[in-house]
Amino acid sequence: MVKTDAKLASGGKAAKFDLATYLQQRKLMVEEALDNSLSITRVETIYQAMRYSLLAGGKRLRPILCLATCELTGGTVDMAMPTACALEMIHTMSLVHDDLPAMDNDDYRRGKLTNHKVYGEDIAILTGDGLLAYAFEYVAVHTKDVAPELLVEIMALLGRTVGAEGLVGGQVLDLESEGKQDITADQLTSIHRKKTGTLLEAAVVSGAILTGAPQEERARLSAYASQIGLAFQIVDDILDITATGEELGKTAGKDILAQKATYPSLWGLEKSKTQAAELVDGAIARLAPYGEKGEPLRAIARFITNRKY
Amino acid sequence: MVKTDAKLASGGKAAKFDLATYLQQRKLMVEEALDNSLSITRVETIYQAMRYSLLAGGKRLRPILCLATCELTGGTVDMAMPTACALEMIHTMSLVHDDLPAMDNDDYRRGKLTNHKVYGEDIAILTGDGLLAYAFEYVAVHTKDVAPELLVEIMALLGRTVGAEGLVGGQVLDLESEGKQDITADQLTSIHRKKTGTLLEAAVVSGAILTGAPQEERARLSAYASQIGLAFQIVDDILDITATGEELGKTAGKDILAQKATYPSLWGLEKSKTQAAELVDGAIARLAPYGEKGEPLRAIARFITNRKY
Repeated sequence: MVKTDAKLASGGKAAKFDLATYLQQRKLMVEEALDNSLSITRVETIYQAMRYSLLAGGKRLRPILCLATCELTGGTVDMAMPTACALEMIHTMSLVHDDLPAMDNDDYRRGKLTNHKVYGEDIAILTGDGLLAYAFEYVAVHTKDVAPELLVEIMALLGRTVGAEGLVGGQVLDLESEGKQDITADQLTSIHRKKTGTLLEAAVVSGAILTGAPQEERARLSAYASQIGLAFQIVDDILDITATGEELGKTAGKDILAQKATYPSLWGLEKSKTQAAELVDGAIARLAPYGEKGEPLRAIARFITNRKY
Repeated sequence: MVKTDAKLASGGKAAKFDLATYLQQRKLMVEEALDNSLSITRVETIYQAMRYSLLAGGKRLRPILCLATCELTGGTVDMAMPTACALEMIHTMSLVHDDLPAMDNDDYRRGKLTNHKVYGEDIAILTGDGLLAYAFEYVAVHTKDVAPELLVEIMALLGRTVGAEGLVGGQVLDLESEGKQDITADQLTSIHRKKTGTLLEAAVVSGAILTGAPQEERARLSAYASQIGLAFQIVDDILDITATGEELGKTAGKDILAQKATYPSLWGLEKSKTQAAELVDGAIARLAPYGEKGEPLRAIARFITNRKY
């Protein structure tokens, strides 16, 4: 049931691991799978709206993490691709709903008009609902060579990741914290763990579940994911201050305008950078048992602090 | 794996089947299960909002259908209850989102203020998202004594039922048809099949999937569900004209105000009633092979045309 893709898994042995090429190749694989996942059939409007946001680009970091962990724990890209696509559908759904006028009211996302600016609020709400439901259907229908009891675990994980303990709960805390001047770093971390951390953890852990990896290994990978998740958010906050809107593909400086608590606003820029770097080092330390095979996940962790967008 | 609850399954043999008592008992069982499914923990707002709509009453027809079909095909109430709850979570999510200002803009539902009137639009959107995700998680985590490959089928069915082929697609068609004067009965039926029919069908068919019922039996039960689903909608349209707002627990006559195409507007009241009755007769005919065991589903079909709310 568990197959190893030797060529990909040992890619780091012959030459130094090249992250840029790896990310680019994986991104293309994911884009192609996403493109094939949703064809436009009857009720065209909703399929077009779902495809508009699902195929709007982005780093595809969550699917790439899922594929990488599945390979690291002895599985294949093919086994993981439906779950990888589902993670991106869920991520996209949360962005489409968070951008709505009743929520963060954003006009641009990934350098394009947000879903509701193109299709209207009603269709944007339904786009999110459709993508969320389709994520589960897609895993259930399209996953091959994975035992059904593991798929049931994947569904439980994805559901928990979206729900009140995850993305939805995080967005509620985020909405409740807006305009408050007395948010502590612990509270901010709690919001981000739910809003960003849980889905990154799910991306990493789902790859390990698909291969039936033991609990201990899942816990180790989950800790890796938790640390890069928080580092990711700290860097996001830093980039909101230091990057341009063009680099980000969305409005820069909007955290300051919204008077949102951010790590730089609580810690200053320097301490924020140091904390992010320490988290990434901690994440990389978890990968020691994997030797060279862990190089893709190690490189992704480093990428998180070095990225410019 | 498949257990028979002999007492409940043969309940019709000793005395004449009493639908009112049956529906009342089943409704209480479902209400209790729903109440237990969601406790209020951290991020209280979202749990309260989810509970507000999930426990706002209603006929609980979808969960009751799922329990009934599971028993009819040789299973137990316990096996089916998590799926039954998930169906009601999905139904509730679709109502919460349909009621939003950007959609149908309704102030009352089941005799209470709609979710967004109490918690605000942002929380109402997240309430729907949370309920939808939790439906899948709940089936995956809480279903007992059902083979995992059957659970994967249930997830695929639930996902398809919500998505662009089901509730979401139906709502899009409904929004697109508003104000149009030239909707035909076929187009109206296509909207309702997606908006109401697919979830009623999923309720019935999921009960049969849980027991591993053969494809032929699923098809028969699906046809039953399709016919009562359409009858249900015709009767809804009739009640919108003939019932009071108090009876309905929502604004009466709003289809006329919104100039929405309805069966009575296309066919007149009398033909609408005849069509609904014929559909119910057709649905009941499908249950012939079950003899007395089919009595609950038969009675539910009759209830659909006789109901006053």
